[in-house]
Amino acid sequence: MPSETHSKDLSGYFTEATRLRDNSPLKSLTKYMQNDPTLVSLGAGLPHPSTFPLAQLSATVAQAGRSVLDTTAPHTTLSITAGQPSGGAVEGLEKFLQYGNGRGVPSYASFARTHTESVHRPRYSDWDVVVSAGNTDAFVKALMLFCQAGDTLLLDEWTYPAIIGTVVPMGVRMAPVPMDGEGMVPEALDKMLSGWSEAEQGRRPRVAYVIPTAQNPTGATMSLARKQALYRVAQRHDLVLIEDDPYYYLQFGAYMDPATVTDASERYAGLPGLSALQPSLLSLDTDGRVIRLDSFSKVLAPGLRCGWVTCPRYMADKIQFHNETSVQQPSGLSQALVSQLLTVDWGHEGWERHLVQTQREYAVRRDLFVDLCREKLKGLVDFVVPDAGMFVWFRVLLGEKSRARAGVMDEVFEAMVKAHVLLVPGRMFSPAGVRDSPYMRAAFSYASPEDLAVAVERLQQALRPFTE
Amino acid sequence: MPSETHSKDLSGYFTEATRLRDNSPLKSLTKYMQNDPTLVSLGAGLPHPSTFPLAQLSATVAQAGRSVLDTTAPHTTLSITAGQPSGGAVEGLEKFLQYGNGRGVPSYASFARTHTESVHRPRYSDWDVVVSAGNTDAFVKALMLFCQAGDTLLLDEWTYPAIIGTVVPMGVRMAPVPMDGEGMVPEALDKMLSGWSEAEQGRRPRVAYVIPTAQNPTGATMSLARKQALYRVAQRHDLVLIEDDPYYYLQFGAYMDPATVTDASERYAGLPGLSALQPSLLSLDTDGRVIRLDSFSKVLAPGLRCGWVTCPRYMADKIQFHNETSVQQPSGLSQALVSQLLTVDWGHEGWERHLVQTQREYAVRRDLFVDLCREKLKGLVDFVVPDAGMFVWFRVLLGEKSRARAGVMDEVFEAMVKAHVLLVPGRMFSPAGVRDSPYMRAAFSYASPEDLAVAVERLQQALRPFTE
Ligand SMILES: Cc1ncc(COP(=O)(O)O)c(C=O)c1O
Ligand SMILES: Cc1ncc(COP(=O)(O)O)c(C=O)c1O
Repeated sequence: MPSETHSKDLSGYFTEATRLRDNSPLKSLTKYMQNDPTLVSLGAGLPHPSTFPLAQLSATVAQAGRSVLDTTAPHTTLSITAGQPSGGAVEGLEKFLQYGNGRGVPSYASFARTHTESVHRPRYSDWDVVVSAGNTDAFVKALMLFCQAGDTLLLDEWTYPAIIGTVVPMGVRMAPVPMDGEGMVPEALDKMLSGWSEAEQGRRPRVAYVIPTAQNPTGATMSLARKQALYRVAQRHDLVLIEDDPYYYLQFGAYMDPATVTDASERYAGLPGLSALQPSLLSLDTDGRVIRLDSFSKVLAPGLRCGWVTCPRYMADKIQFHNETSVQQPSGLSQALVSQLLTVDWGHEGWERHLVQTQREYAVRRDLFVDLCREKLKGLVDFVVPDAGMFVWFRVLLGEKSRARAGVMDEVFEAMVKAHVLLVPGRMFSPAGVRDSPYMRAAFSYASPEDLAVAVERLQQALRPFTE
Repeated sequence: MPSETHSKDLSGYFTEATRLRDNSPLKSLTKYMQNDPTLVSLGAGLPHPSTFPLAQLSATVAQAGRSVLDTTAPHTTLSITAGQPSGGAVEGLEKFLQYGNGRGVPSYASFARTHTESVHRPRYSDWDVVVSAGNTDAFVKALMLFCQAGDTLLLDEWTYPAIIGTVVPMGVRMAPVPMDGEGMVPEALDKMLSGWSEAEQGRRPRVAYVIPTAQNPTGATMSLARKQALYRVAQRHDLVLIEDDPYYYLQFGAYMDPATVTDASERYAGLPGLSALQPSLLSLDTDGRVIRLDSFSKVLAPGLRCGWVTCPRYMADKIQFHNETSVQQPSGLSQALVSQLLTVDWGHEGWERHLVQTQREYAVRRDLFVDLCREKLKGLVDFVVPDAGMFVWFRVLLGEKSRARAGVMDEVFEAMVKAHVLLVPGRMFSPAGVRDSPYMRAAFSYASPEDLAVAVERLQQALRPFTE
């Protein structure tokens, strides 16, 4: 039951740039058109739809819950046609081809809203959604609401390189927070903030960036208790939490030792689909301090370049205005396809079946890869088995001699390349610029099962000399 | 004949943020994959293509050179299929659905490069293209190469509101340059820069933002002589020119008085298509100081949200890195459609026929609207007849009494709204915040011919009292 609490006003945290971000003056004229049906507008500089060369957009899509590569399952075709709204509330194609505002095409935004309501059940009244061109686009905009040169961003000790590549040119400093197998450690965050000295460390941080599910690169997923503890610390220190959660829908549950399993299908009996997912930080948020970022990149396709942001409306408005002076909107073709697929052709139920199928794909890969690693890399690496996502984060168990050599992990990387296997060196994920990280990230999401096996063999070869 | 002159190095103008913008470390790993075909990569966190639910993307497109609304011309269907490259060099659909780098999908980028080569014939050797999510996205990134808080941007006295909405939150100041019927006046720019006092006016500007074709809002198009003069001033003061040119392909030539025309078709005999367009600033650029922005918004559809930037390679690289921490790429669906349509289904020749058809659409509208305005608004407004684009820029010929009243243009706006006709008040285009602009912008691009006639009638009614 969504409560009628209003969000806490955090607009005092807005940067000067955010304060100055305003509705496009031309877009402010639309109210005159809405109020007067007889008005003839020569206002907006809209191209004429007769010049758009598309009459219809169609896509051959997989049956919900079956892989597109599964030739035994008949595909279906969806279409969006110019000049006629399709089934349901999806607009005609010409609407997706024309300029709109930075809030997105209504049926797409409305899908995002309905979905968020049903999955995350926000606990304050004035939440809203605003479209994004994916989570990368979205975290830049979320960050820029509050952070400017000289400010400090709280983030994980190991994190997604694109956030580092965003923050460094902005002149924003980074305060890495220690992690464990569940991600950011709330007590460590609390301690860091309680001991913060503005004289020595600059202005107190207002924003923490976290990846709560299948963290990139560590694969760590926060438990509910961890999220609750983190949220309490955020309340205590009045922080905004940017919840970058592209792997949220790729939860697939705990690893079962194959020795304890009688039938392999047991391993995939409990896939959460859409209805049994772990609660998000957004779903715990009573104050309106979580900015949640959702993306279709990992659950439909990254090339769509679309997602959405959920946060208090006054923040969503500022992101909308920022959209209007950057991407304007995600591609109309992408919005059309998602809107038509998820609200009409598949609907909510088909979407859930697709997610179960996707969860299974990654669960099978996780199991295959982890089974192999437990067998072949024992004594060479340490890792937490991930419950979601695409990554395993190895700590190389360097032998005494190796440990003593500076730059040994560069040697490890070279040895791997020589053995024709590539993992990503841990240092690439370090906001602090730690060079001698004993970690490496492996993605089990893409390589074929055969290649995963070859990779683990080669890894064994390459690592052994360093662990003796 | 492209000369082998190298661009002048303007990287000394880069902001600190631009200097810090770097290749994504993960993307730097691709070189290992390219150099070693036997390598097994667990590097990139790519989603598995079996989870992408699209097998084929199709579009019903207009016959090249015919409007999509023309039911007598048979439409054709184009398709991009997963797993198989289509005709020509266009990739299979799965490539458009997957992550790539910020340079764009190869066939799309290659179309942009070939097209730029053939239409603009750059005069220095190290030019390159980089994809954008449209010109709005592109001008922000072009601007951010060189401008930060405290810098000053040179721009037109009346300009596109989104550039103002971009610059203000950045803390970048604006120096509006006087215009005439051809746009920015080079002598005025020269004088402004020659008399620049860093002590009083802050750091000398390095960048000018111009819209050379069918300027928004004035409709002004620069002649070749104007472009040459502007370029010389840019050389003299070592300026970067951002050439925002979304209306470039909407050139349709001078207005012919209907009284002098015996056959209406005479008016549309000389449409330039693709091969007889006015030279761009890029085509005059021997130094590599022009950053040219092209968009498909006005020549295919704005909803595609894609375009490209042409500039020296070292600048394009920085824009690529900026893409990688923002939009990543334009939508793959948009890139797939453009790539397939313009390189395979229509090809260069069909693309030219489509442009002629589009030029005709706007030429007919310009003529209809201008014929009406000359007849009904004589003595009420003044305007330069546009040779391209979508806009007419009216100066209201205020009567003596009206002229004396502060805020009279707000009264004019209210009178128009009361008469059920909407134009955009001139003040919305003023970087200097001029409130009492006697100008208004009319777009003839969208309203139906009947509505254009109604609008002019209502305008006549609304304006008359203010001109007496
Ligand atoms: C934590 C994290 N955020 C964001 C992204 C990118 O998401 P999008 O494709 O929606 O921009 C990724 C993907 O690599 C990621 O791992
Ligand atoms: C001068 C100018 N630049 C850019 C744009 C927007 O272009 P895009 O749709 O490519 O972002 C417009 C459109 O209104 C414009 O008039």
